[in-house]
Formats: sequence, structure tokens, C-alpha cells
Amino acid sequence: MDPSRPLDALNEARNKRVVVELKNGRKIIGDLQSFDIHINLVLDNSEEHENNELKRKIGKVFIRGDTIVLISVA
Amino acid sequence: MDPSRPLDALNEARNKRVVVELKNGRKIIGDLQSFDIHINLVLDNSEEHENNELKRKIGKVFIRGDTIVLISVA
Amino acid sequence: MDPSRPLDALNEARNKRVVVELKNGRKIIGDLQSFDIHINLVLDNSEEHENNELKRKIGKVFIRGDTIVLISVA
Amino acid sequence: MDPSRPLDALNEARNKRVVVELKNGRKIIGDLQSFDIHINLVLDNSEEHENNELKRKIGKVFIRGDTIVLISVA
Amino acid sequence: MDPSRPLDALNEARNKRVVVELKNGRKIIGDLQSFDIHINLVLDNSEEHENNELKRKIGKVFIRGDTIVLISVA
Amino acid sequence: MDPSRPLDALNEARNKRVVVELKNGRKIIGDLQSFDIHINLVLDNSEEHENNELKRKIGKVFIRGDTIVLISVA
Amino acid sequence: MDPSRPLDALNEARNKRVVVELKNGRKIIGDLQSFDIHINLVLDNSEEHENNELKRKIGKVFIRGDTIVLISVA
Repeated sequence: MDPSRPLDALNEARNKRVVVELKNGRKIIGDLQSFDIHINLVLDNSEEHENNELKRKIGKVFIRGDTIVLISVA
Repeated sequence: MDPSRPLDALNEARNKRVVVELKNGRKIIGDLQSFDIHINLVLDNSEEHENNELKRKIGKVFIRGDTIVLISVA
Repeated sequence: MDPSRPLDALNEARNKRVVVELKNGRKIIGDLQSFDIHINLVLDNSEEHENNELKRKIGKVFIRGDTIVLISVA
Repeated sequence: MDPSRPLDALNEARNKRVVVELKNGRKIIGDLQSFDIHINLVLDNSEEHENNELKRKIGKVFIRGDTIVLISVA
Repeated sequence: MDPSRPLDALNEARNKRVVVELKNGRKIIGDLQSFDIHINLVLDNSEEHENNELKRKIGKVFIRGDTIVLISVA
Repeated sequence: MDPSRPLDALNEARNKRVVVELKNGRKIIGDLQSFDIHINLVLDNSEEHENNELKRKIGKVFIRGDTIVLISVA
Repeated sequence: MDPSRPLDALNEARNKRVVVELKNGRKIIGDLQSFDIHINLVLDNSEEHENNELKRKIGKVFIRGDTIVLISVA
């Protein structure tokens, strides 16, 4: 596998806490459990944050890839 | 099947009650009956909720995948 | 055919009266005559409803799949 | 050809007068001359209508499929 | 070639003056020089019109297909 | 190569100064260095213009094709 | 490899500091670590800037390609 591909960075983030920013401005934080080539994600122990404050706990969540803008390590 | 793929998490949620959040801000809750790779879903005994209150009962519903943002277990 | 796929639920709804909710907020009710994998639909004896009241009769109508949010049985 | 597919309904509408409703709210009425799998259409003797009144005559027009919401027989 | 396809109508319009209406409401008029299956177009001697008046001359222009709503003969 | 395809017009514009109009209303002017079938572009010595005035110099820039409306020769 | 393709310019920018402008108006600056044909990017040591001022440090970030408008060298 070419180590220089973007999905490799996602792979390194597996099981780590990530921040996912969505096109509608929402921010979901959780443990990256899995992803696919469409950037569909599953996060565990996830939470929605607003203005850097916890808004609600969601638990395990599936996020459709085409709603995602950015993914960074928390 | 690779247990680390997002669709596997959907598969585990089959027959469970899930919350589906749509791009237009609507929230549909129902029993996940089926899904496909486009994330088209069929929910049974579904309801639309608004501000955490039941807005209306829908029954069995087909949801087009490209309108979906998040899917979580209810 | 895998009975657990979303299109199977559409197939069961064939010749039944369905409610189709569109991305622009419109609601079309009609007899589901046919559909394809893009969720393009043809409804017969269709009507547009607004605020739960009949707005106009349309007759036979082709609906482009990518404009659809939800399909439920009327 | 499977008689239960949506494109068959379009095929039956060939050479008939149809109403095409676009995503931007515009309504084009014309004789359906041809269509393809993307629902690109060509209408002849077409007119744009607004509030159920003729706004302008367009003649022969090519309509890009991804701008279309509904097609019904006039 | 099946004479009943929408791209055939575009082919007949080649070298003729066409009006191209874009999703952002703009209207470009020019000589249709070429097109492809994405409805990418090249117009020569093109002009942008607004409220049925010439707004500016553009000359030769490439228009990306997915921005197009309608194409008609000028 | 069929000389009547839109990408041929882009090819003729290679190394020439082009005006690229984006879906968000921005206008980038630069020397067309390369393009691909998605209409992804690379411009060199590029500038952003607003109301026909230079807003800023950008230098070499990659423009994602799906944000483009029009490309014309400067 | 054809040296005249847009992705070659991205390849030359690898390990350099780039400015990525997103469809929602945001601007992310970072070291281009990797990219793919969808223009998905990974930037390292990234920062979000607003009105030419540092808004926040993000570190390593995955950016989904379909949210990108422009990429230039910082």
C-alpha cells in the first residue's frame, strides 16, 4: 500500500479520538472505528459539540461520507 | 467480511431502533429493516421527531441514502 | 433476491398508494407504478398535497429519484 | 423490455405534450421528442409557464436531466 | 445513431446560435461549436445577456455541463 | 482526436491566459497549464479579480473542476 | 506520466505548505502530505485562517476532496 495516500492517514487514526466537521457546521467527536473509500465513518463513544462545548452524547454513530468536510485527531 | 467496515456497523443495527438525521434537519426514528451500499434505508414503525417530541407516525418508510447525515442507535 | 434490501420494500409497495416527500418540501401522493435503482418513480392518479390538503391533481407523473427524501405507504 | 420501469412511462409520453418542473421552480411545457437514461430531454414547441400563464415561447429545447423534478402529461 | 436521443438535437444545433441558461440564472448566447456527453459545451462569439440585453461579449467560451439548465436555438 | 470536442478547445487554450469563473462567483485569471477530464485545472501566474479589478495574486493554483462554470480566453 | 496533468502540480506541491480554500469559505493552511484522485488531501501542521489571521491550529487533517475549491502554494 502506497504510504502516501490520504486513506492511510485515516487508517492511522483508527481507534483514536477524532473530530469530524460536517457540511452543515456540526462537529462530531468520537473514536474512529471504521471508514470506507466513500469516507463513510463509524465513530464510537461519540458526542456532538457546539462552540467547543458538549451538546449531547450520541454513542455509536454512522456518518455518511458526503456530509464530511474535515477529519482531525482530537 | 472485513469487520472493520462502516456497513458492518449498520448490519449490527438491523432490527434495532435507530435515529436517522437528514440533511434537511429532520429526524426519523424507526426499526432498521434493510440498507444498501447507497445507504438507502427502510425503517419500520417509524416516527418523525422534532425538538425531541413525536411529530407524526409514518410506519414503514424508504429513505434515500443521499439525504442522510447520521445514523445512530436510539 | 435478498429479501433484506431497501428496493424490496419498494417492490412490495408497487400498485399501492404511496406518499413521496421531495427535497424541495413538496409531497406527491399516488399509486406506485414503477421504480428503478436510481429511485426514479412513476406514480399514477397522483396528487400534490400541501399542509395535508389536496393542492392539485397531476395524474401520471415521473419523479426523478435524486429529488426524493422519503417514500411511505399512504 | 420490462414494462414496469419508469423510463417506459417516458417512452409512452413520446410525442405527447408534457409538463416538466425544474429544481429552480420553473415549468416548461412541450412535446416530448426524446430522452435518455440521465433524463436529459428534448421538447419541441416548448413554452415556459409561470403561475399557470404563458411566460414565453422557447421552441425546441434541450433540458439537462439533473435539473428536473417531475414530468407529467399536460 | 438512434435519431430519438437528446444529444442528436444538440448535434443538429452545431454551428447554430444557441441560448444556454445556467443554474445561477445567467444566460450565455453563442455559436455551438462542440459538446460532449457531460453536456460540456464550447460556444464561439458568445455573449452574456441579462434581462434580454447584452451585458458583455465573451468570445469563445467553455461551459461546464453540470451548470446548465436549458439549451435552445437563439 | 475528434476536433469537435469541448476538451479540444481547452487544449488550444493551453499556455494562454484564461478567465475561470467559479460557482461561488469568484473569477480567477491565469495561464492555463493543464487540465483533465474532470476539468480540474492548473493555472500559473494566477490572480483573483473582483469587479474587474485585481483583488490578489495567487501564483500557481489548482482549481477543482466541479466548482467551475465558465472558462474563456482572457 | 503525462507532465501536463493537474495532479502532477499537486505532486510537486507534496511536502510544501499549501493553502486550501473550501466551498464553505474556510481556508486551511498546512504541509501537503498526500492526495488522491478525488482530491482528498492530508495536511500536516495545519491551521485554519480567517481574514488572513490564524484562527486555530488543527495539526494533521484529512480534507474531503469534494469540499475544495482551490489549492495554492502558501
